Amino acid sequence: MTDFEHWMAATQERMEGALARCLPPSSQVPARLHDAMRYAVLGGGKRVRPLLVFAAGELVDARAPALEPPACAVELVHAYSLVHDDLPCMDDDVLRRGKPTVHVEFDYATALLAGDALQTQAFEVLAGSAELGETQRLQMVATLARAAGSRGMCGGQQIDLDAVGQVLSEPELEMMHIHKTGALIRAAVHMGTLAGTPLSAADAGRVDHFAKQAGLLFQVVDDILDATTDTATLGKTAGKDQAADKPTYVSILGLAAARTKARDLLEAALEALSVFGARAARLSALAQFIARRSF
Amino acid sequence: MTDFEHWMAATQERMEGALARCLPPSSQVPARLHDAMRYAVLGGGKRVRPLLVFAAGELVDARAPALEPPACAVELVHAYSLVHDDLPCMDDDVLRRGKPTVHVEFDYATALLAGDALQTQAFEVLAGSAELGETQRLQMVATLARAAGSRGMCGGQQIDLDAVGQVLSEPELEMMHIHKTGALIRAAVHMGTLAGTPLSAADAGRVDHFAKQAGLLFQVVDDILDATTDTATLGKTAGKDQAADKPTYVSILGLAAARTKARDLLEAALEALSVFGARAARLSALAQFIARRSF
Repeated sequence: MTDFEHWMAATQERMEGALARCLPPSSQVPARLHDAMRYAVLGGGKRVRPLLVFAAGELVDARAPALEPPACAVELVHAYSLVHDDLPCMDDDVLRRGKPTVHVEFDYATALLAGDALQTQAFEVLAGSAELGETQRLQMVATLARAAGSRGMCGGQQIDLDAVGQVLSEPELEMMHIHKTGALIRAAVHMGTLAGTPLSAADAGRVDHFAKQAGLLFQVVDDILDATTDTATLGKTAGKDQAADKPTYVSILGLAAARTKARDLLEAALEALSVFGARAARLSALAQFIARRSF
Repeated sequence: MTDFEHWMAATQERMEGALARCLPPSSQVPARLHDAMRYAVLGGGKRVRPLLVFAAGELVDARAPALEPPACAVELVHAYSLVHDDLPCMDDDVLRRGKPTVHVEFDYATALLAGDALQTQAFEVLAGSAELGETQRLQMVATLARAAGSRGMCGGQQIDLDAVGQVLSEPELEMMHIHKTGALIRAAVHMGTLAGTPLSAADAGRVDHFAKQAGLLFQVVDDILDATTDTATLGKTAGKDQAADKPTYVSILGLAAARTKARDLLEAALEALSVFGARAARLSALAQFIARRSF
């Protein structure tokens, strides 16, 4: 394993423990709800957003215990969005991370409530994190709320809903993804940099520019994988965007141009970090890792 | 109108404006989502939880601008819970506050997302409220998150789901309601007292005891109204608990004993406030107002 792979595996393992600790135990009433919440969050997932929190934290010399709460919070929001996104009234999907989705394993109402409660838990974790100062916690609550709400992730999902069956231009598709997946990725990076020595406004702008490129990169790669990988490898239903007549970078640009776009986005993301030197090594490696999945 | 009625009408009007300001305009993309959020929150509702925030604020000499953010936040959480509770996979209700429910007026997926985004908005409002100190805001975020999540409101809804068709004892029913409606009412009162001069631990305990009694009172009254009022007067489908075979205070105790219970809870609630004298006049009058609806 490379040094980056070691770091990634160690961070993923740390996150599994941290997430398990920040969720109520299954033994606590109502057990079925807590079971469903733990099922939705634990035992799977690449933890890309927590990895971004930890990698961004290295830019500001943040301590690991101070990075755990925002890493958990952003992953809880991501997990809640997947639970709701998989519901029959949304994408109606039965497979996620190689397992039955929450409403299949439990039931529709429990999945709805589990998603609701996971979102709440994210804010409870941030508000109660003794490892962070009050200003840091408040900035993180504001950052995560802004990114998750109607002007961020939820807004992107609505734009996605409205787009089914529509012919979108590339800028329109980009607008959707900047909200749907980009907002939470930007929030992850931003929260990581809030956990240590504050950045100058100019440096914060550079990091945010990186995060925007990385967010789009992540979505382009996801679209490429959805079109080129089988369900077993993916751990979720493959080809479903095409089946649902949803616009993707592959459907709009074609596979070759989508791969070129991924390379261009990676280059722009790495360029934005160039002034930071070795402090940005993890964040750069993480962007490269995300991109590599599609090449 | 009595002085209390004047105060209630003025506070409700203030809340209508405050809620309208804290929601994104319908003109903002995605318009359909913002429309649905505004539809769910504005133009109706008794605003009981905001009234509790404002009444509790009088105990600690809180200024009105400092009470608006927690009053809005708790109402946004309440509104989100109604949107999700009315969905076909939950109570499957078509009428709320005399209007079609959100999934009927819009669609199922939009209602799901609107509820999700309303919850997020509650935390965004609290985190960004310049009228409050950082410590106050963080305490309110923690209070609201704890009350709304799996160990509060969402947990109560799961207990409710699990109870359909079951025979519950009165203590089991009470356990459900302490979570389902009681937690948010306690949070409303607690947030109101966090917005002014801090209470002593003993006084905070008295106020919390009041809030627990008031929360149960509210539920007993709701059950009595559900069993005795027609749909047009209620503005939501009447008799639906009975139709859904859900246990209520009326089904377990009978109507006469439920009314006696409401009187006893009111008395206990008022007793808890007795040491505060005139400072608690609004909070006492509000509890009496809630109770009076059932007599």
